[in-house]
Amino acid sequence: MVEPKKVVIIGGVACGPKTAARLRRLDPDAEITLIDKGNVLSYGACGMPYYVSGDVERVDALLETPVGVKRDAGFFRKVKGFDALTETEATRIDRAKKTVETVSLATGEKKTLPYDKLVLAAGASPFVPPISGLDLEGVYHMHHFEDASKVKEVVDQKKAKKAVIIGAGLIGVEMAEAFRAQGMEVTIIEMLPSVMGLLLDEEMGRLAMKHMAQKGVELRMNQTVEALEGDDKGSLKLVKTSQGEIEADVALVAIGVRPNSEIAAKAGLAVDPKGGILINNFCQTSDPDIYAGGDCVVNISLTGLSGQGVFAPQGSTSNKHGRTIANHIAGRPESFDGVLGTVICKAFDITIGRTGLTEKQADALGYDVETVLCPGPDMPHYYPTAKPMCIKLVIDRRTRKVVGFQAVGAGDVAKRLDVAATAMSFGATIDAMAHLDLGYAPPYSPPLDPIVTAVHIAQNKLDGITRAISPVELKRRMDEGDQDMVLLDVRSPKEREQVRLPFEDRTLHIPLGALREKTGELPKDKWIIPFCKLSLRGYEAERILSGAGLMNVSFLDGGILGWPYDLVVPKPDSSS
Amino acid sequence: MVEPKKVVIIGGVACGPKTAARLRRLDPDAEITLIDKGNVLSYGACGMPYYVSGDVERVDALLETPVGVKRDAGFFRKVKGFDALTETEATRIDRAKKTVETVSLATGEKKTLPYDKLVLAAGASPFVPPISGLDLEGVYHMHHFEDASKVKEVVDQKKAKKAVIIGAGLIGVEMAEAFRAQGMEVTIIEMLPSVMGLLLDEEMGRLAMKHMAQKGVELRMNQTVEALEGDDKGSLKLVKTSQGEIEADVALVAIGVRPNSEIAAKAGLAVDPKGGILINNFCQTSDPDIYAGGDCVVNISLTGLSGQGVFAPQGSTSNKHGRTIANHIAGRPESFDGVLGTVICKAFDITIGRTGLTEKQADALGYDVETVLCPGPDMPHYYPTAKPMCIKLVIDRRTRKVVGFQAVGAGDVAKRLDVAATAMSFGATIDAMAHLDLGYAPPYSPPLDPIVTAVHIAQNKLDGITRAISPVELKRRMDEGDQDMVLLDVRSPKEREQVRLPFEDRTLHIPLGALREKTGELPKDKWIIPFCKLSLRGYEAERILSGAGLMNVSFLDGGILGWPYDLVVPKPDSSS
Repeated sequence: MVEPKKVVIIGGVACGPKTAARLRRLDPDAEITLIDKGNVLSYGACGMPYYVSGDVERVDALLETPVGVKRDAGFFRKVKGFDALTETEATRIDRAKKTVETVSLATGEKKTLPYDKLVLAAGASPFVPPISGLDLEGVYHMHHFEDASKVKEVVDQKKAKKAVIIGAGLIGVEMAEAFRAQGMEVTIIEMLPSVMGLLLDEEMGRLAMKHMAQKGVELRMNQTVEALEGDDKGSLKLVKTSQGEIEADVALVAIGVRPNSEIAAKAGLAVDPKGGILINNFCQTSDPDIYAGGDCVVNISLTGLSGQGVFAPQGSTSNKHGRTIANHIAGRPESFDGVLGTVICKAFDITIGRTGLTEKQADALGYDVETVLCPGPDMPHYYPTAKPMCIKLVIDRRTRKVVGFQAVGAGDVAKRLDVAATAMSFGATIDAMAHLDLGYAPPYSPPLDPIVTAVHIAQNKLDGITRAISPVELKRRMDEGDQDMVLLDVRSPKEREQVRLPFEDRTLHIPLGALREKTGELPKDKWIIPFCKLSLRGYEAERILSGAGLMNVSFLDGGILGWPYDLVVPKPDSSS
Repeated sequence: MVEPKKVVIIGGVACGPKTAARLRRLDPDAEITLIDKGNVLSYGACGMPYYVSGDVERVDALLETPVGVKRDAGFFRKVKGFDALTETEATRIDRAKKTVETVSLATGEKKTLPYDKLVLAAGASPFVPPISGLDLEGVYHMHHFEDASKVKEVVDQKKAKKAVIIGAGLIGVEMAEAFRAQGMEVTIIEMLPSVMGLLLDEEMGRLAMKHMAQKGVELRMNQTVEALEGDDKGSLKLVKTSQGEIEADVALVAIGVRPNSEIAAKAGLAVDPKGGILINNFCQTSDPDIYAGGDCVVNISLTGLSGQGVFAPQGSTSNKHGRTIANHIAGRPESFDGVLGTVICKAFDITIGRTGLTEKQADALGYDVETVLCPGPDMPHYYPTAKPMCIKLVIDRRTRKVVGFQAVGAGDVAKRLDVAATAMSFGATIDAMAHLDLGYAPPYSPPLDPIVTAVHIAQNKLDGITRAISPVELKRRMDEGDQDMVLLDVRSPKEREQVRLPFEDRTLHIPLGALREKTGELPKDKWIIPFCKLSLRGYEAERILSGAGLMNVSFLDGGILGWPYDLVVPKPDSSS
C-alpha cells in the first residue's frame, strides 16, 4: 500500500480551497492541510464593493455556498473532507527537510508540518504608498474580508459624507460607485492621466471618465497624494495632493496589490522583480514539489512575448490554478497555458472590459499595431433596450491577429469581451472573427454584431480599402496647429444641432445623401476627415470621396460617439 | 479602360443590399442593379414580432437607419450609390446569354437585364401546410414586412382575444410572447414533442416549455393541425387538430420556411433536395458567375460531416454572405467557411440559445457522444441580479471537441452562447475551453463561469473521474420499473420541503455534510444516484461514495434545476 500523500496548502481564499477540494475528489486518501493567517476562509472578495454599495445586503453572503452554508473549517472538514487551520501563519519553508514551520496567531504555538507537496496560495497585499497619515481613523484598504465591514460601518453609522479614493484602478472605480450609491461625495486621485490607466488606453479610459463625471465623481488625474492629515482625535480630515487639498471623512487607498511571496523568496524559489512567484504551466515553482497559484504568482502571458509573465490577479484564474495544481499532484497533469489579462468592471451604468494588450503595450512589445475604434448600439437601434458601447481593437498587422480588446459603454460589453477573449485564446485573426456565427435576434444583437463590425473595419484598414485617423492623432494635430486638415461632418442638420466636434471653424458640412453630387466642391489640396455619429457614414463618405478621385481622405475613427475629449453642444440660436 | 462590371442582384432584404453597398465601396464604377418583388427594401425582418408585442412602437423603425433615414430606393441611390427596382420580379435566367428577364408587378413591363455577375438573394417563403382554411380572414404568416402590420392591426383594432400558433419553432415561440404581451390567450400546436424541436434536444425544449406554461401559453405538443374553419363571413373560428378543436380569432402559421430557388433550379443551378441553392465558400453557385446568399442557400456546416450542408436562415449570415459575394466580385476573395447553426431566441423572461449539433444530431452523425447538463446562476449567488440558466454540452469523446451547445434560462444565456460559438469555430476541445480567460466580476459572472463549470464536468466524465446519469435516462429507467436504482437526495431538510423529484419512495435523504460519516449506511447492491439542486453537491457525493469504495454511483446530471419533467411540491404537513 502506498503512503497517503501529505499536502500542505498555504492560503485559504480561492486557489487554496479549490486545490484542496479538487484534490480530495481525485485522491480520497491524501492528507490535506490548509492554513490561513486570517479567520475567514473562502470568501467572495470581489463582492466586497457590492456590500459597501448596499447591493449585497448581508456580508455573510460572501462566505456562504449558494444554499446558504458557511464555508468555515467545519464545512471544509465535513463536506469537502480536508483540514483547515485558521489564524495560522507559515513562517518558513525548509525545502531540504520538506517541512513548513507555522505559528498560531491566537496561541503562539509553533508547529512543523511535513509535506510531500506544498502549495503557495497566500494571495497579495495592498501596496502601501510612502505617505504620512495612513494610520488615521477613516483610512482604509479594500482587500481583506474585515475591510468591507469596517468601511460599511463607517458609511452607515458614522454618516461619512466625503470620500477620497486614492487610485483609479479597478477597486477605485468600483468603490466610487459604492460610495456614490451611499450618497457620498467622491473624489478620485490618480497619478496617471486616465482611469484604469495600466489596463486601458487613454481614450478608452476617458470614455469611462465621461460617464463617471456624469455620475458625480470628481476625477483628479495626473496628481499624487502627498499626505493624509487628521484632526486632534486622530480622524482623517484632509487629503493633500500635488495640486491641492481635499476634505475627507474617508480615504480608500487602492493603488494596487503586491504578491505575498516573502516566504517563497526566502526559501530560494524563483520570484520576479515585482515579487510574483514564477510558475510553469502546471503551476510548479522552481522547486517541482512546491506549487503556487492565485494572486501571489506571475502568470504566463498568452499575448506577451514568449517567456514574459503578467501579474493578473483574478479570482477566476485562482480557481483554475487550484484545479491545475490538484490535477498535477493527483497524477493527472493538465497544462494551463496562461492568461490574456481579462478584466471586467462595472462603473455605474457602464461596463468596462479589456483583454490582451493595450495599444501602448503592443507598441512597446514591437507589434506592428493597427487599431480600430468602433462605437455603436449593442442591439438593433429600433429595439427599445439598445444601449451604446465603444469597442477598441488592437491588431498586429503582420499576423492579422487581434492582440488586444477594450470596450466601454452601457451596452452589453461583457458578451463582446468574452467573445474576444475566447477568440484570442485561439490566436484568432480578424478574418476568422469576421465569420463568427454569433447569436442574432433583436433583443441580443444587431445582425452584424458590434465585434464583427469592428473586425470588418480592421480588415478594411489592413487591406487598404479605407483609411482612418484616430481621435488621439486628430486632436494632437489640431492642438499643434495643423493647417492641412479639413473636417467633413456628413451628419444631418438636425444631428448637428445637438452636438459637434470642437473644430467648427475647420469643419465643412455636407450630409451624406448629398455628398455624391458635391464631391467637386471639396478642396483637393487638403486632408479631408469625414465623420458622423458612429463612423459608418464617415467610412461611406471616405469611400465616396476616394472613389471620386480625391487622394487624401481618412474618416475619423469612432466618430462623435467615440470622441474621448470634450464635445460642443451648440447654443439653440447658432446656425446649423 | 476596363468596361464597368454589370452586376444584377435579385432580392432586397439583407444579403442583396449588403452585397450592393459593399461592392459599391470596393468598386466605384460597377453598374449595380438590385431588384425586389416587394416594395419594401432592407427591413429588419427579425424585429417584426417586437412590433406586434408593442416593444417596437413604429413599424417604420424597422425600415430606417440608426439615424432615422428610410432605406428606400432613393436612399440606396443617393447614399449607397446603386439602383434598386422594387415591385420587379425576376422570371428567368439565361445563363448562355447572361441575362435576367424581369417583369414589373406594377406595370407589367418586361425587361431583359444583362449581367456579368448575378447574385441570387431572394430569401425564403413560409412553408404552407396542406390543410383547408388558410385563406380565412385571421390566418397569417409572419414573414413579409406587411405581415407585421396586418397582425398588429387585427390585434389592436379588432380586439382579437384568442391566438393559435401553428408550429413551436423560433417564430412560434417569439410570437407567443408577442400575443401574450397584447393580453391574448395563446395556444401553440406542434407535431414534435417539445418546442424548437429541430433545434433543441427534448429535455432543453422542456425547460423552455415550463417557463412558457408559467407565462400562460397553452402548449399542445405531439399534435397536427387538420383544418381551419371559419364563420359565415369567412373569418377564422376554429382550429381542428388531431386531438381536438380550439377556438381562435387569429391563427399564425409558422412551420418553417423554404428557400426561394425556383428560378435557380430552372436555370439548371445545383439545388439540394429541400430546395436550397448549393454554394461554395465564396458563395458561388454551380455557375461561377452566379452567386447566392441569404435564406435561399444551403450553408456549409462547420460541425456536420464534410460536404453536408445546413439550412440555417439568419440575418447575420445573410450579411456575411453579402460581404463575401461583394469581395469576390471585386477581386478580393475571402473564404467564408460555413456556419454552426447558431440560434438565439427570447421567450418571455428566458433566453433560449443553441449552436452546433444537438445530441440527437450528433448521434445520427456517428459522433461518440457525451453530454453535460449544467444548471446554475449566471453570477455569484450573492449578487442581487443573479438568475438561473441551464447549459447542455454535446461533446465528441474521440476528439474531446464540443460539437453542440444549448442553454435555456433567465440568466445571461446570450453571452455563453456566443462564447461557445466562438470556441467551436476554432474547433475547441473541452480542455481549451476550461482555460478560457473570461471576464470575472460579480455583476457579470461567478469566478468560474457556468460554461467553464460545464466543461469541467465534461472533463471529469471523459477522464473517468466521475459518473453521471442524464435525467432522460433516469426517467426512462424509472418508468420502465427499474428496481436497481436508489436516489440519494443530499440537500438540506429545508430544501427538501420546497421541491422534490417524483420518486420519493425510491429516495434516501442524507445531507451532504453528514454523508462522509454515513457511507456505511448505503446499500452496496444498488445503483446509487445522488442529486441536489444543481448537481455540484450530487457530484461531491458521488466522489465521497466512490472514494469510500461503493462501486456503482452516478450523480444526476443537472439536479433539480435541470430536471425537465414535473417536480413535486410537498404538502406543508408532509414529513421531510
